[in-house]
Amino acid sequence: MTTESATALAHQLTAGSVAALARAITLAESSRADHAAITRELLTEVLPATGRSQRIGITGAPGVGKSTLIDTLGVLLTGLGLRIAVLAIDPSSVRTGGAILGDQARMSGLNADPQVFLRGSASGRTTGGIGPGTRESILLCEAAGFDVVIVESVGVGQSETAIADVVDVVIALIQPGAGDDLQGMKRGLLELAEIVVVTKADGADVDRARHTAGDYRRGMRLFAPRSPQWVPRVLTCSAHTGEGCADVWAAVVEHQQCLTDAGERLQRRAEQRQAWFTAAVADGLRARFHADPDRAALLSQLSDGVRAGQLLPTVAALRALTSA
Amino acid sequence: MTTESATALAHQLTAGSVAALARAITLAESSRADHAAITRELLTEVLPATGRSQRIGITGAPGVGKSTLIDTLGVLLTGLGLRIAVLAIDPSSVRTGGAILGDQARMSGLNADPQVFLRGSASGRTTGGIGPGTRESILLCEAAGFDVVIVESVGVGQSETAIADVVDVVIALIQPGAGDDLQGMKRGLLELAEIVVVTKADGADVDRARHTAGDYRRGMRLFAPRSPQWVPRVLTCSAHTGEGCADVWAAVVEHQQCLTDAGERLQRRAEQRQAWFTAAVADGLRARFHADPDRAALLSQLSDGVRAGQLLPTVAALRALTSA
Repeated sequence: MTTESATALAHQLTAGSVAALARAITLAESSRADHAAITRELLTEVLPATGRSQRIGITGAPGVGKSTLIDTLGVLLTGLGLRIAVLAIDPSSVRTGGAILGDQARMSGLNADPQVFLRGSASGRTTGGIGPGTRESILLCEAAGFDVVIVESVGVGQSETAIADVVDVVIALIQPGAGDDLQGMKRGLLELAEIVVVTKADGADVDRARHTAGDYRRGMRLFAPRSPQWVPRVLTCSAHTGEGCADVWAAVVEHQQCLTDAGERLQRRAEQRQAWFTAAVADGLRARFHADPDRAALLSQLSDGVRAGQLLPTVAALRALTSA
Repeated sequence: MTTESATALAHQLTAGSVAALARAITLAESSRADHAAITRELLTEVLPATGRSQRIGITGAPGVGKSTLIDTLGVLLTGLGLRIAVLAIDPSSVRTGGAILGDQARMSGLNADPQVFLRGSASGRTTGGIGPGTRESILLCEAAGFDVVIVESVGVGQSETAIADVVDVVIALIQPGAGDDLQGMKRGLLELAEIVVVTKADGADVDRARHTAGDYRRGMRLFAPRSPQWVPRVLTCSAHTGEGCADVWAAVVEHQQCLTDAGERLQRRAEQRQAWFTAAVADGLRARFHADPDRAALLSQLSDGVRAGQLLPTVAALRALTSA
């Protein structure tokens, strides 16, 4: 694809073409250098058209009900005339190859709706609960005119807290439980979530869900909130009966208003951009450094010595840095 | 200092000289390249004599009672015939210049004891709740024969969770509080703490302290523990009456035994060494990259554009990486 076609793609994208959006995200997720170059060019062209959506992260263990909540929210939001894009990050290791199709099939309420864009991405190449190109994909969805961008992440893995670095608000989903049955959220996530939702609050589980919500409401008082402006909200909902789903959306809107009024929303986004830049520079330096196969072998050998405790880490680092 | 004197210092250190230890830590904390070289040499010589201590992190807000607990623990441990070293990391910004002397004066019970080494370090040059040379200082204390190394950190700042990267167990200290009075721990810290101690459980505050401990005990069930082997312990103590301090130590010993039995203690230390190596390489690459004053100016300018949202972070990164 040439510069001209990047410009053409930019035009289609800002005209709201979902097909163009799908192609652009494929480019953004590609590991090929030429695709990365087109993506940079495309994003630079559409940059003025980005930044206007509500960026929402939804995270929780597999089976907690992320897709069904998103489905219900999607119906609600499209009913309000909003266009909604869903980027589902799925660690390829966790499910079988066809992960996303399964997800899309489950989100049946949404799939039929032209106001809705659904996209599954394997997070294979990166860790942290976001995938390669997630940041770019959010911008692309915004350029295509989507009002709400939801990043859905399975809250597993080592550093799944990265989702908080790309969205305005993290919603953590929890199963109802009682006493020792509580699954316990992955470390780090609970402290980043500004809205916690206990799912499956229906039928025989309503009381358990309310009890769990109370536990989390009390528990979340134990650590300082992320923002001085916002006391984390703990809600219950049933994607089955629909009850509580409107409250989840109301909390998102209230959160955005609250942080916007305090100037914190724009501040956070500026910090996220800065962090993205810093990480991109560090990644580039590391990639360049590791590109030499001899050095890659040396690094691996030094690493073994360090792990075994035979080599001081700073000595190993010096040897790596001074290697030809 | 020449190679020869690094060797001499290594001999004095492994002979248990506290004066040599103090000098070695000064070298380790220095930002001078020649001092860093001596430190590497010295540590390489004494490496076989390291690794044998219990490394304990104690963290909590200013005024929570870290120093008094450490004082009481120190008297207890020296009574058991153990040698104890305390590295107090003090963000220089938080207190006045003479921070450490104040700390040492407060730890009066310890100061008189030759079995005890006290060292204050300003964390001025690094963030993360540990200072420059903290990792090296721990190794130096071990080489000098100390059985217990306590890293005391004020749990403030952006990424104070770094203390967990250098010790075997983090003890988080909390004030007694009730209901909305709860201070709330800094984000991240609570989830890394495997022992939580509610301080000042004496006099009129005993009930409040017990109540607070109950709150934290329930609250900590809400997220998955750091280790599958260890359910975080929540204790109360009074450094004033001494009550509960022995239990804190018993919990530390039990924690160590538990993780040692599971093979997790050595595993964690290997991962900490690996992380130190990785960070040292990344720091070196960044330092080299930023060393050119023209590039430093360019980075600052690019950063402004990125923060303002006028420049795509990946485009800015590419410009930085391809700058001459």
